[in-house]
Amino acid sequence: MTKSKLKIIPLGGLGEIGKNMMVIEFEGDIIIIDAGLMFPEEEMLGIDLVIPDISYLLEHKNKVRGIFITHGHEDHIGALPYLLPQINAPVYATKLTQGLIRVKLKERRALQGVVLNTAVPGEEISAGKFRVEFFSVCHSIPDAAGLIIRTALGTIVHTGDFKLDYTPVNGKPTDLSRLAQLGTQGVMLLFSDSTYAELPGYTPSEKTVGEYLDRIMAEAKGRVIVTTFSSLISRVQQVIDAAAKYGRKVFIAGRSMTDTVRMAVELGYLNAPDSILGQIDEVRGMPPEKIVLVTTGSQGEPTSALVRMANRDHPHVHIQRGDTVVLSATPIPGNEALVNRTVDNLFKQGARVLYYKLANVHVHGHGSQEELKLLINLVKPKYFVPVHGEYRHLNLHAGLAQSLGMPKENVFIMEDGQVLEIGIQGARITGKVGSGNVYVDGLSVGDIDGVVLRNRRMLSKDGIVVVIITVNRQTGKVVGRPDIVTRGFVDTREFNDMIEQSKDQLAQTLDHGGARAAEWSFINTKVKDTLEKFYYQQTKRHPMILPFMVKV
Amino acid sequence: MTKSKLKIIPLGGLGEIGKNMMVIEFEGDIIIIDAGLMFPEEEMLGIDLVIPDISYLLEHKNKVRGIFITHGHEDHIGALPYLLPQINAPVYATKLTQGLIRVKLKERRALQGVVLNTAVPGEEISAGKFRVEFFSVCHSIPDAAGLIIRTALGTIVHTGDFKLDYTPVNGKPTDLSRLAQLGTQGVMLLFSDSTYAELPGYTPSEKTVGEYLDRIMAEAKGRVIVTTFSSLISRVQQVIDAAAKYGRKVFIAGRSMTDTVRMAVELGYLNAPDSILGQIDEVRGMPPEKIVLVTTGSQGEPTSALVRMANRDHPHVHIQRGDTVVLSATPIPGNEALVNRTVDNLFKQGARVLYYKLANVHVHGHGSQEELKLLINLVKPKYFVPVHGEYRHLNLHAGLAQSLGMPKENVFIMEDGQVLEIGIQGARITGKVGSGNVYVDGLSVGDIDGVVLRNRRMLSKDGIVVVIITVNRQTGKVVGRPDIVTRGFVDTREFNDMIEQSKDQLAQTLDHGGARAAEWSFINTKVKDTLEKFYYQQTKRHPMILPFMVKV
Repeated sequence: MTKSKLKIIPLGGLGEIGKNMMVIEFEGDIIIIDAGLMFPEEEMLGIDLVIPDISYLLEHKNKVRGIFITHGHEDHIGALPYLLPQINAPVYATKLTQGLIRVKLKERRALQGVVLNTAVPGEEISAGKFRVEFFSVCHSIPDAAGLIIRTALGTIVHTGDFKLDYTPVNGKPTDLSRLAQLGTQGVMLLFSDSTYAELPGYTPSEKTVGEYLDRIMAEAKGRVIVTTFSSLISRVQQVIDAAAKYGRKVFIAGRSMTDTVRMAVELGYLNAPDSILGQIDEVRGMPPEKIVLVTTGSQGEPTSALVRMANRDHPHVHIQRGDTVVLSATPIPGNEALVNRTVDNLFKQGARVLYYKLANVHVHGHGSQEELKLLINLVKPKYFVPVHGEYRHLNLHAGLAQSLGMPKENVFIMEDGQVLEIGIQGARITGKVGSGNVYVDGLSVGDIDGVVLRNRRMLSKDGIVVVIITVNRQTGKVVGRPDIVTRGFVDTREFNDMIEQSKDQLAQTLDHGGARAAEWSFINTKVKDTLEKFYYQQTKRHPMILPFMVKV
Repeated sequence: MTKSKLKIIPLGGLGEIGKNMMVIEFEGDIIIIDAGLMFPEEEMLGIDLVIPDISYLLEHKNKVRGIFITHGHEDHIGALPYLLPQINAPVYATKLTQGLIRVKLKERRALQGVVLNTAVPGEEISAGKFRVEFFSVCHSIPDAAGLIIRTALGTIVHTGDFKLDYTPVNGKPTDLSRLAQLGTQGVMLLFSDSTYAELPGYTPSEKTVGEYLDRIMAEAKGRVIVTTFSSLISRVQQVIDAAAKYGRKVFIAGRSMTDTVRMAVELGYLNAPDSILGQIDEVRGMPPEKIVLVTTGSQGEPTSALVRMANRDHPHVHIQRGDTVVLSATPIPGNEALVNRTVDNLFKQGARVLYYKLANVHVHGHGSQEELKLLINLVKPKYFVPVHGEYRHLNLHAGLAQSLGMPKENVFIMEDGQVLEIGIQGARITGKVGSGNVYVDGLSVGDIDGVVLRNRRMLSKDGIVVVIITVNRQTGKVVGRPDIVTRGFVDTREFNDMIEQSKDQLAQTLDHGGARAAEWSFINTKVKDTLEKFYYQQTKRHPMILPFMVKV
C-alpha cells in the first residue's frame, strides 16, 4: 500500500451555504469538485456575487487534472466563468449540467478553449492518480450526481446535493444500491450534504406537490399561475402534466424560465406535447379556465415576470380577480420581505394566493436527518466530513454520524481552507491554506476589500459630509468660510441652520490654528474632530466627514 | 338613536407589522388605541425606528379624550414618548403595562406632565362620548388586554394582540365568557388581531414549552442557559419553576432582562423565592449542574449578554463544553442571519444548542386561524375590521370572517389612513387622511425623507466620487487638473490608474467648454455625464458623483 497522503482542502461551502468547492490532492495530482458562487449577504453592500478564493489552486495550477461538477445549480457551477480562464483543466459533468454550464460560460464570454466532457453515471473517468465515477442522486434539478473517487489509498464518496425521493418526477432516485455495494467493499471517506441536517425525519416526495398542483388545476375556475425556480424542471413537468389532464394550455413567462424550458425540452428532460405549450401573446384571447402560466419570480425578484404581473407592468398578463397564484418555492433566507411584498400585491390585485405558509406548494431538494443517517449507514465510511452548510449544519450532521457509532476522532468538522491529511496511519488536520470570500462587483473580481465595504456601510447609515477649505498658498491662512455639502445625512432644507452653524464653528476653530492652519494633517484632523462632535451633539448621527483643502 | 357617525381611522398597523395605532372619533371626541413603533426594514438605511404619522391627530388635538394601551410591547407603546409631548391626553393601561410605559417615558425624558391611569379589567372608564372597559386577553406578556368601547351607536370590541391559551403560565386566559356575553347583547364592530392569520389550527399552549424546559433541566449535566425576549415574563417564570424543581439557582444576565425581572418581581408578576435568584458574579464558584442563566440575546443582538458569552466577551460567563443553550424564541423576520451566526458561535464554543429549528423551545403570542374563527363566532359583530398585519394577513383574516357567514360588504380590509364611517344606515370607506412612516434617526424625528434614504441607498451600493474643479474667477477657465477622491467605490490602490485617466478625460472635456466652462450648471452636468459614463464602462458600477467648483 502507498505511503503517500491524501490532502482534502475545502475552498468553499464549509461554514457558509453556497460557493461550494472541494479540492482533493494525491501524489501531485489535484481534482476539484464543484465551483460555485454565493449570493451576497446583507452586509456585503453593492456586491453582485461571491466566489471562493482560489489562490491555493493558482499556486498549483499545473497539478489540476479535472474539475468535476455534481449538478447545474449556481452554487455549484457559478464560479466556473472566473475559474476556467485561470485554470484550464477539463470539466466533467452529466448532460443537463453540461448544458447549463455552457449557457453560463457563454453569457460571461468564458467558453472559448474550455474542454467540457459528458460524464455518464457508471463509467469511470481517469484524472491523474484518480479514477472518478458519477452516480445518480435525486435533487431539485435533473441529472444531479454524486462522485465515487478511487485512489491508491481507498475510495472516497461525495454525495453532491441529494435527497432520497423514491418517487421523483423525472430523473432517477439516488442510487442506493450502488452506495450499498460500495459500503460492502469499503469506503475510506464520505463527504455528505449537510444543508438540511437541522430537519428531523424525511423530506417529503416531489409527488406530494404533484398531487397538490393537480387538485388546484381541477378546482380553479380561472387562470392558474405557478411560479418556481427556473432550474426546478421537475416542478415544471408536474405543472404541464396537471395542465394536460384538465385541458389547460401552458404559457411560459420570464426569460430564464423560457430559456430553461426550451433547453430542457431539447435535451429531453421535459416532456411537453407540442400542443400544450403556447405563446405568451396568445393568452389574451383564451378563456381563463384554459390557461396555466409558469413564471419566474418565486423570490419576489423586482424584474421577474410575476412581480411585473402583480404590479400591472407586464406586457401580456395582468393579475385579475379569479386568478389562482401558486408560489411553488420557499423564500431563500434574506428574500422573505420581497416575497411577502409580492404576495401582498397579488392579494391586492384580487388573486387567490397559495404560498409556503398556507399550503404544501413546495418540497426542497435536500435530505433530512433520517435520510442522512440512512446514507451514512449504507456507505459505512471510515472517515466522515460533512459538507455544504454553515457550522451548525456541519456540527449536527457530525452528531448524526456519531449517533450511528462512528468514532468521534474519525469525524471532521472542517472549515474552508483547512487541510485534512489522510494516510494509512490515520487522518488529521495539518494546516490551513488561503481561503475566503472573493467579491464580484460589476466587472471587477476581487478588488472590493474590507475598506471599501466598511466605507459603504458607514455611508449607508448616516451619509457623508464633504468640506472644502480654501487656503492662501502664501499666507497659509484660511480664505473665506468653509463650503459644506451633505448627502444622505439630513434633510438639507430643515437643517440649513445647523449646517451654517457648523461652518461658523469650523471657521473659528481653523482661525485659531495660526501658522499651522495650512498644513493638511492639521486641517484634516481639525475638520473631522470639530464636525463629528458638533453633528453628533445636534443629531446623534455619525456621517462620514471628507475634508478637502484647496490652495489658491 | 343618534344620527351621528362614527369614524374609524387606523394610523398604523394595517399594512405593516408594528407601529399600531387606531383612532376612533364620535361626535367631536377622539380616543386613540395604542401608540406603537416599528423597527426599520432593510431598505430604511440608518433609521433607528419608525413611528406613525400623527398629523391628523395634531390637527384635532383638543378632541383627544384618552389614549388606551392594550399591552406593554414596543409595537404598542413605543410611539408614546413622541406622541405625548404633542398630545397631552390621559393614558389608560393595566398595571404592568403602565410600569413599562413609565420606564420608556423616563428613558426618553418624556414622563413630565403625563397622566398615567391604571385600568382595571371590568371597570368602565369615561372618555368624552366613549365608555371604555378593559378585558383580559392572553398574549406573550402579562396583563394584556382588549377593549370594549361603548358609544351611542353601538359597542366596539378591540382584541389587542391575543391568543386563546387555556393553560397560560401566569396572567389570565382570554376572557371568553365576557366576549360571549357581549356577543349575545350585540356588538357593532370588531377589531381583531391578524398577525398569525396565515397559520392553520391552534397556537400551542405555553404549557408545552414549560414541559420541554422541565425535561432539559432534568437531563442537562452542565449549566443551562436560556435566552428569550425580556418582556416574555411567563417564560422566565417557567425557567424559574423548572430550576427550583431541580435544585438549580437562577442568574439573570443582560440589562433589559435584569430590569424587567426586577420590576416583574416587585409588581408581583413573577414569583421567585428569594433563595433562587443569585448574583451573576457568584456564577464562577458554583457547580455547573446547579446553574441556570437567563439572558437577553434571543435575536442575536451584537451587544446582548448571550452573544457576548458566545464571543468570550462577557465579564462573568463564557460558554464552555457541557453547557446547554436554549434559544427560547423564534427570529423576528430580518434577524435570521444574526440568530444563525449566534447559534454557530455557540456550537463552536462546544455548547449543545437547542433552537427553533430543532426543538419546541417557543410558542408565539398570537391566535392561529381556528382561534380567530372562534373569537368572531363568539362576538358575532355586525362589522369586522381585521387589524395588526400586512395586507395578506388582513385579507386572510377577512376571508375567515366570510367563511363564518359574515356578508362581504360588512368586512373591511382597511389600510392606514383610510376613514371608515359607520352610521345607523350602514358603513363605508369615505376618505383618507395623512398617514405613513415617520423615521426616527438619532435625535431627529421626521426629517429623514425619500431623498435622504435614496442617497443612502445609492451610497451603500457603489460609494461616492467627489470632484473638485478649480476655476479662475477672471478668465472663467479651469485651473489645473480636477481633484478626485472616492469612498466605497473601488480599491483606490488597485484603481489608481483609472482614477488618473478619469481626471485627464474630465480636464479635456472641460477645456472644450470654452467660455461656458465657469458656469456651474455646465460643470455640474459635464462632470456627472463624463464620469458616470467612464466609470460605468470601466467597472459597471454607478457611484454617486458629487462635483464642486472652487473659484479663485
